[in-house]
Amino acid sequence: MIKELTVNLGERSYPIYIGQGLLEEVGAYFEKHGISKASPLLIVTDSHVAERYLQPVTDRLKEAGFQPVSHTVQAGEKSKALSVLEEVVTTCLEAGLDRKSTVVALGGGVIGDLAGFVAASYMRGVRFIQIPTTILAHDSSVGGKVAVNHPLAKNIIGAFHQPEFVLYDTSTLLSLPDREVRAGLSEMIKHGLIWDAEFTTWCEDNADRLTGLDPEALQYGLYKGCGVKAAVVSQDERENDLRAILNLGHTIGHALEAVAGYGELLHGEAIAIGMVGAAMLSVQLGNPEEIHTVTERIFRKFGLPVRIPAHYDTDAIMTAMMHDKKFKEGQMVYIVPTEIGKVEINKNVSAALVRDVVERLKQED
Amino acid sequence: MIKELTVNLGERSYPIYIGQGLLEEVGAYFEKHGISKASPLLIVTDSHVAERYLQPVTDRLKEAGFQPVSHTVQAGEKSKALSVLEEVVTTCLEAGLDRKSTVVALGGGVIGDLAGFVAASYMRGVRFIQIPTTILAHDSSVGGKVAVNHPLAKNIIGAFHQPEFVLYDTSTLLSLPDREVRAGLSEMIKHGLIWDAEFTTWCEDNADRLTGLDPEALQYGLYKGCGVKAAVVSQDERENDLRAILNLGHTIGHALEAVAGYGELLHGEAIAIGMVGAAMLSVQLGNPEEIHTVTERIFRKFGLPVRIPAHYDTDAIMTAMMHDKKFKEGQMVYIVPTEIGKVEINKNVSAALVRDVVERLKQED
Repeated sequence: MIKELTVNLGERSYPIYIGQGLLEEVGAYFEKHGISKASPLLIVTDSHVAERYLQPVTDRLKEAGFQPVSHTVQAGEKSKALSVLEEVVTTCLEAGLDRKSTVVALGGGVIGDLAGFVAASYMRGVRFIQIPTTILAHDSSVGGKVAVNHPLAKNIIGAFHQPEFVLYDTSTLLSLPDREVRAGLSEMIKHGLIWDAEFTTWCEDNADRLTGLDPEALQYGLYKGCGVKAAVVSQDERENDLRAILNLGHTIGHALEAVAGYGELLHGEAIAIGMVGAAMLSVQLGNPEEIHTVTERIFRKFGLPVRIPAHYDTDAIMTAMMHDKKFKEGQMVYIVPTEIGKVEINKNVSAALVRDVVERLKQED
Repeated sequence: MIKELTVNLGERSYPIYIGQGLLEEVGAYFEKHGISKASPLLIVTDSHVAERYLQPVTDRLKEAGFQPVSHTVQAGEKSKALSVLEEVVTTCLEAGLDRKSTVVALGGGVIGDLAGFVAASYMRGVRFIQIPTTILAHDSSVGGKVAVNHPLAKNIIGAFHQPEFVLYDTSTLLSLPDREVRAGLSEMIKHGLIWDAEFTTWCEDNADRLTGLDPEALQYGLYKGCGVKAAVVSQDERENDLRAILNLGHTIGHALEAVAGYGELLHGEAIAIGMVGAAMLSVQLGNPEEIHTVTERIFRKFGLPVRIPAHYDTDAIMTAMMHDKKFKEGQMVYIVPTEIGKVEINKNVSAALVRDVVERLKQED
């Protein structure tokens, strides 16, 4: 059973296909979406994903009459860099990619972001397809945000560039390491926390099935998670207002990632801590204590971290936050839960209060 | 007398102001367009332009209540590189530019392209203002094409990002070196050749006034040149078809620049040769001989080169062309004049014919 949903963005609308074994039919999906057979297409992937999936995907595309070439980068956040982008563009040029070519992201969030920014900027924009191979990427592969990092800040150089479609083969998730599975589920839980109390409860009730990679639970969870993301993005493609709610947990989360050095904390782990922090902040702003207790209980149930390692420097975390994109004209914008399944965009959170939360996250347990 | 014209692009429409001494009033223009005073703004400029204009522009913006910071790059095409973009973003981050900030290009085409791509990609896009200080930039500052170079190809990594407005102070042109003046006028002549026979004749008749920097002739020529550019861009913002006519002379021109090493031939010089080549090609395709003779006569009148230096390698030129963006699905797309003031997009030009033209451009004189 294939589940399909649409990201509604006018002429930039596109479908997300979710199901087991979809990569077997990759050629048919490319054909259905009118991908050029006359121009070469580029598959961007990483060293881990390439081992398992690059050859079969390439073979199937060739069988279907496409001209795939590939560029494999090192697995990990360090590949989201301008220097790597330049190397990928070298491959594009050497392979003769032209304006009718397509760039395909085969991998997790790092690959989606990197390949997406290549697609957005190569010849000022070519077509783009997302083939996510991680749970975390159910978030990043929907919505068109693509970017690379700068040594001083994450995702600071990028674009909005929507894919033609997202092809989500859940079989690829079965080989993920346990730590990555849990970290990926962190974004799924986030989609419940910001939008859908019922789905949040479902996540908590199905923690074991999800962390155990039960196919049916995975497909349903990804479908619901992508659905929340699609609904939000459809209403606010370029993050003028609503879309900011997707950043729940990300203000502290991004700062932790920056301070830890990219890669030490997985993204999903960092934002789990960040979401617990946002829940603490919420309670301090007068919302019910339950928001904190439930949020923390869920993440513990998924085996995700809920505290900042004590050796992280508070000043460094605060400075990293100042570089984050969620500051407008000096004001601190914060996504704060108001109940389970609902958040608000609070534009008047004082840095002192956030600092206090960071200190508490380092101490309590 | 200020001349004003509008680039019509729906909600992305913007005005171009052309006149002497406009920089005196730079603060008023920024205010009129609602540029944020609460967020810092970044002026990107080069070492040459900075000497004359950075201090006065900065002072006037501060007097008007804005918070300008600046980043000065080395003058020249080499600054259109990803590594330089990363340095500019470092300045953005250190100065605390946020989503309401604006990036200002103060300089010629290189600065416009670099600063524009910073504006397009920093935080996935912030506001952008063009303050061109060269004649050549009357072309590049209109239409929203921004990009940096890759070692293997020019302008290959970029975006479409329209400015809020273009502020063209013709006084800044008076200090340009003579060679740059002539090279800049090459794009002005191009705008006549592709769109307006009458304006082409006016250019030829006023060659001495234009190369002599007569203020009235300059203002009129820039107004007409920008007008052609604006008309074309309004009809085809993202170069699906019509906009390609602006590339007259650029297929050979870009290849010459790549082979020469960026900077040896000025862009305007390279495309002058390219336009003569396109005219030769036109005659070979059966159009009247006059197209070639008139085209060549005009460029000679402006003291621009009309031949390829004999030591340039023909194979290298042809290879560079293959990397150019004007190839779609292996076909060679060429902008060919059909009469003075009119061109066509010819999608079936054989590489052999182009090679023949390149050889003739190296020999005849």
